[in-house]
Amino acid sequence: MNDFTFKNPTKIIFGKDSHLQLAEELKGYGKKVMLIFGKNSAKKSGVYSKVLDQLKDLEIKEFWGIEPNPRVETIRKALTLAKDFKPNILLAVGGGSVIDATKLISASYYTGSDPWEVVNDANQITKALPLATVLTVAATGSEMDCYSVITNWSEHKKNSWESTLVYPQFSILNPEFTYSLSALQTAYGIVDIYSHVLEQYMNTTKNALLQDRWAESIIQTLIEIGPKVIKDLDNYNLRANLMYCSTMALNGFISMGVSQDWATHNIEHELSAFYDIPHGAGLAVLTPHWLNEVKSQKHDKMAQYARRVWGLKGEDDEVIIEAIAKTYDFFFDLGIAMSLKDYGINDEHFKDMSDRLTPNKIGEIKLDQQQILNILNSSL
Amino acid sequence: MNDFTFKNPTKIIFGKDSHLQLAEELKGYGKKVMLIFGKNSAKKSGVYSKVLDQLKDLEIKEFWGIEPNPRVETIRKALTLAKDFKPNILLAVGGGSVIDATKLISASYYTGSDPWEVVNDANQITKALPLATVLTVAATGSEMDCYSVITNWSEHKKNSWESTLVYPQFSILNPEFTYSLSALQTAYGIVDIYSHVLEQYMNTTKNALLQDRWAESIIQTLIEIGPKVIKDLDNYNLRANLMYCSTMALNGFISMGVSQDWATHNIEHELSAFYDIPHGAGLAVLTPHWLNEVKSQKHDKMAQYARRVWGLKGEDDEVIIEAIAKTYDFFFDLGIAMSLKDYGINDEHFKDMSDRLTPNKIGEIKLDQQQILNILNSSL
Repeated sequence: MNDFTFKNPTKIIFGKDSHLQLAEELKGYGKKVMLIFGKNSAKKSGVYSKVLDQLKDLEIKEFWGIEPNPRVETIRKALTLAKDFKPNILLAVGGGSVIDATKLISASYYTGSDPWEVVNDANQITKALPLATVLTVAATGSEMDCYSVITNWSEHKKNSWESTLVYPQFSILNPEFTYSLSALQTAYGIVDIYSHVLEQYMNTTKNALLQDRWAESIIQTLIEIGPKVIKDLDNYNLRANLMYCSTMALNGFISMGVSQDWATHNIEHELSAFYDIPHGAGLAVLTPHWLNEVKSQKHDKMAQYARRVWGLKGEDDEVIIEAIAKTYDFFFDLGIAMSLKDYGINDEHFKDMSDRLTPNKIGEIKLDQQQILNILNSSL
Repeated sequence: MNDFTFKNPTKIIFGKDSHLQLAEELKGYGKKVMLIFGKNSAKKSGVYSKVLDQLKDLEIKEFWGIEPNPRVETIRKALTLAKDFKPNILLAVGGGSVIDATKLISASYYTGSDPWEVVNDANQITKALPLATVLTVAATGSEMDCYSVITNWSEHKKNSWESTLVYPQFSILNPEFTYSLSALQTAYGIVDIYSHVLEQYMNTTKNALLQDRWAESIIQTLIEIGPKVIKDLDNYNLRANLMYCSTMALNGFISMGVSQDWATHNIEHELSAFYDIPHGAGLAVLTPHWLNEVKSQKHDKMAQYARRVWGLKGEDDEVIIEAIAKTYDFFFDLGIAMSLKDYGINDEHFKDMSDRLTPNKIGEIKLDQQQILNILNSSL
């Protein structure tokens, strides 16, 4: 186990009626609340009116239009509105994209610099506007972490940044608020959670016994509920367990004292930056090929994954190959198209992508350019 | 899964050199630090001098003498010293007893009432002196929770209380600081951790899939490392995993959205209140008999425990009996005497104990007086 420091101050309020605590939780911040939304799904699902009902005594301002793979161009507009309105707190109502965008508004509010500069130099953040969330998608874990991923569409860049100052003050987790997601959107969320766990679990750290088991537990739970929830979208218990897994997968609980990888996420960010595909789709396609590429370097953990998560028996090399196939099949059976061609992607930009990634030496074991190209080409 | 709210603001700093961050972490609270210690084990182990080395620029005051099963009589003396010294922060250096005592000093500092009144009415706490910890025993989890258990020896009472205001600001978790614990002290810690998990896991809540797996993971890890660590007391990896399990077992991570039990702890507190036996010893003796007493009411979870934690195969009723025996053997093999008679306890006070417990209806399923007596009598 490596040495580590951990602190996560976000309060989570989970359950069917959790949104009824909004007004109480917002007390103490002040009267002015700026709400940040995506396109219009919060209106269609009814979440919008349920949230508004709780804010009757407050002065509110709404910003609509954060897109999936949230763009800095849109965030600039929201920031302008925020500086004009001068809210006491920002309330993100949506999924990871809306929350990630809200984090950047929060962090850029006091810096005086452009949000894209904040993304690229988060050290300049010394103060942030408080933010809270009402979650509507189980996927990114952004509701209980200090990370954010932002796209600069004009430069075809998708960069992640972090600051402990943008942990949400609180997050309302109502599983019913995810009922309106389609089977495919739900499947993308499942893949995102699965991938978050693998990025933290598939490491070469020795002797982090409980961390390993907790990571395996999340994947085992996803394997148990994933195929059920996409066929039973309004099932409270399934939605609740999925939402719980999502939040637990990236709040730091399973990453204490272990090395992390994040190569798959880094490569996927390149795909999204060029093609704007759904994050979960990109991860589903890449993950089995990434596992195959690193299977020698992460041999022991891959064998453990095969045996403990998938219950496979046999020689290491055999169970590893079989576990990669099981992973592929799990994503495929969720209804996800499993090759890049399915998303209109060819190898045109692969060299550019790998050029941009290589200097950063992505992944725990620092993938070289050929390995990155192998993963991309085998994903076609 | 039940609805829930969760927030744990404690920062943990884990590793071989974690104590070197003490001065940095204490910055910002002020110059005056009051240190709280147990008897003299911190001096014998060398922890005392390592801690003092980090506090050279601060004005410190030391209080020595917190006993195992910490007594309110001792805490009153520490509180008097604190009110005289007026520290900016309290620093507990020790195990759960020292930390629990420090929490009560922290909470009583502003109330104006006697500490025992605070224990019995924690609602009166509206402000608390900040506290931090340097942990020297892996057992109670007090380093990352808001609970405290205090003994009133003159009344033979041992009561628990809680307040979110007494979460430690930070806790220094250096596994090397536990090397000096004997095999038996270490074993008592293992039992305490094991019992904490069972109290949260052995519930009748349905559909808390990940919570179940995380609880099982901690017990599986204890089963893996417990027998090794008591034979290899200076092994860093084993001590680190044990300390990590200890903190994770009672920081709220495995109790979100589930009912809890705590009957075993409640009965053990009665034993300690009358006989001052080690907490871990009392729990080891009681736990198998408690499991046996509730095996019908908690049938499904008991069968799951048997299969998942102990890998048993067969009919439910068979594997449940076998799992209880495995639990007993696990504690016994750690070197713990497994009957109350071994601790000089007879049935003299059993009726008193059960009288005091029954009105509180302890346990998730509310044990009646006969059940409590059954557990005590079968533990003789």
